[in-house]
Amino acid sequence: MLQDQQYLRIPGPTPIPPSVQRAMAQPMIGHRGNETSELLRSIKPRLQKVFGTKQDVMIVTGSGTSGLEAAVVNAVKPLDEVLVIVTGAFGARFVAICEAYGICVHTYDVEWGEAFDPQEIKKHLRNHPKVSAVFATYCETSTGVMNPIQELASAVDEVSDALIIVDGVSCVGGVETRMDDWGIDIMVTGSQKAFMLPAGLMFIAASERAWNVIHSNPNRGFYLDLSKYKGDLAKDTTPFTPALSILFGLDQALDMMEKEGLENVYGRHTLMKEMTRAAFRALDIPLLTNDEDASDTVTAVQPDDFDAEALRKVIQKEFKLSVAGGQGRLKGDIFRIGHMGYCSPADVLHTLSMIEIGLIKSGKEIELGKGVAAAQRIYLEKGEKN
Amino acid sequence: MLQDQQYLRIPGPTPIPPSVQRAMAQPMIGHRGNETSELLRSIKPRLQKVFGTKQDVMIVTGSGTSGLEAAVVNAVKPLDEVLVIVTGAFGARFVAICEAYGICVHTYDVEWGEAFDPQEIKKHLRNHPKVSAVFATYCETSTGVMNPIQELASAVDEVSDALIIVDGVSCVGGVETRMDDWGIDIMVTGSQKAFMLPAGLMFIAASERAWNVIHSNPNRGFYLDLSKYKGDLAKDTTPFTPALSILFGLDQALDMMEKEGLENVYGRHTLMKEMTRAAFRALDIPLLTNDEDASDTVTAVQPDDFDAEALRKVIQKEFKLSVAGGQGRLKGDIFRIGHMGYCSPADVLHTLSMIEIGLIKSGKEIELGKGVAAAQRIYLEKGEKN
Repeated sequence: MLQDQQYLRIPGPTPIPPSVQRAMAQPMIGHRGNETSELLRSIKPRLQKVFGTKQDVMIVTGSGTSGLEAAVVNAVKPLDEVLVIVTGAFGARFVAICEAYGICVHTYDVEWGEAFDPQEIKKHLRNHPKVSAVFATYCETSTGVMNPIQELASAVDEVSDALIIVDGVSCVGGVETRMDDWGIDIMVTGSQKAFMLPAGLMFIAASERAWNVIHSNPNRGFYLDLSKYKGDLAKDTTPFTPALSILFGLDQALDMMEKEGLENVYGRHTLMKEMTRAAFRALDIPLLTNDEDASDTVTAVQPDDFDAEALRKVIQKEFKLSVAGGQGRLKGDIFRIGHMGYCSPADVLHTLSMIEIGLIKSGKEIELGKGVAAAQRIYLEKGEKN
Repeated sequence: MLQDQQYLRIPGPTPIPPSVQRAMAQPMIGHRGNETSELLRSIKPRLQKVFGTKQDVMIVTGSGTSGLEAAVVNAVKPLDEVLVIVTGAFGARFVAICEAYGICVHTYDVEWGEAFDPQEIKKHLRNHPKVSAVFATYCETSTGVMNPIQELASAVDEVSDALIIVDGVSCVGGVETRMDDWGIDIMVTGSQKAFMLPAGLMFIAASERAWNVIHSNPNRGFYLDLSKYKGDLAKDTTPFTPALSILFGLDQALDMMEKEGLENVYGRHTLMKEMTRAAFRALDIPLLTNDEDASDTVTAVQPDDFDAEALRKVIQKEFKLSVAGGQGRLKGDIFRIGHMGYCSPADVLHTLSMIEIGLIKSGKEIELGKGVAAAQRIYLEKGEKN
């Protein structure tokens, strides 16, 4: 087998582009010197565009979960009531974080594989008028659902002053995000998904309304206290030594996104979703999620007559192609394909062609090439711009 | 000026070796796959050797300060009394973290530039019998002091059951650390110092005694809850997506340290300290710290007749040589040279030769070469093994 080839098509971490690898291999620099300040000055306005906000986007060294925790410890006080909308494993993580801090959590559970209905949330909030924050997941990585966060923000605004806090880890940078226009109060994402970087940085922004809450919160911890990051960002620095090599990479990744154009980046992700879904539909293999709720960055497939885990093993062994399994209650039932970040429509065809072989090798009868052809047709029909 | 040359001699971040850069540029992999498990299995026993412990060394994505906070939130309950020994800016950071959590803090202040006296701490503890944890800094980066943590642990043990919690950020990996033999309960360090890596990972280990306290602590936060990391490490995984590229680098950095031999790594750091100190002594330029208290990884110089900041500017402009200034109350008064991680005795001679030119250029009268010669003599006398 040809060495040194492997294909990472899980919903993050995602592959690192060669130019980002080269940028990250720059010699190390001092974190208090001018070069670091210049780097932060270059990055700041560009991250704001990706978030769709005029507010500061803070850069914190940590996994995505540290971003979810930062949202909780900064914007919620221990005796507050909050509402967490759980559409999968990452919604459940918000619940676990809130519970770890003794916060009174109301949970709104949605069937895994479906998006929430903002009108139902509005009704629910009417019954819980003390709720000070609503937590939602933009792309629920565990199910491949993209939740309607814009509509959520409008609906909540009609009945409540609660802050809207959104986990955007597995999609911001790959799908349109207009934090300010939509009225999102806190948005969090991580470096290892649509940003085409290794894990190690998380990005978080807060609305003016959220900052008022944060500044009046007496207990914000220490490392994740966002007021420290905001104050230092205004001086083009960070309170603690940042993961500088990933910052070097971020600068280059933002260059790549800007050269492509953010609209085209988003269009490419939508196209890749449609190609992936068309392929499985052509092969008569069920998808977990309906078209309306489906994420542009990750697709969950729910086989009804073959074993998802067996397929994953075959394609890993045959091609070193990694796709993700199910999480939590969906473990063993689904497999998930990441089409996000450094991934092109051609890469999607490549992935699908390998999965078709894997299906045959794992005993599923399919017509070879049928899924690929369906994806190719979508590409020809809608992909001109990319 | 020849492009692409720069010399980073601050006490962290430190330069990245080429082979570590290459290791970090490996294609990204899934964080839940076998390759990541194999990587963690390879790293685990080797980190234990560096820490001098049979306990698990947990790997957390975050800056060093997240490690200090992890020690606090896991091992201290909100109403506990603790003693923090403050020998500089990083001891003060432990105080700030404890205060952010409403912990009752007794502070023991030592003149900046001096090490603490373990016998004095013992006396102090007799007056504060309720203290459940003593926080100390192994190498105080802000002053270049190496504190006697082995002696501290023995002294405390005579009068108290308090846990000994040590910030080893700017020295572990560069100086001998025998956590188990010395009776250290929690040891923390970061990736960007003696480990020759970018910032982004922190490593933390706890004694059996400390684990008993941690497991009985009802509030350990979420992201920094060490019990999650311990449970997952036993299964060769991590609770949250780790900074994988830095893990690739860690594997290679540990290879380098093992090929050199840990004893030789430690000997090299001691030698570099002695060379640096001999040079400034030969030039009649005062050092902040006496020989006994001086750190093997960073040397603080306290000029009495020239401006430290002016010198730093000159060597930065002339050679792109970065050394650090003072922090906190020592700002403007000292400069600090890092001789740690990917730094050889020859690199120390190189640094000193550039500083001598910088001294002349900034108006200080010295005999050129005198400092370098003193360092060379130390090398010839003591450096054979390296």
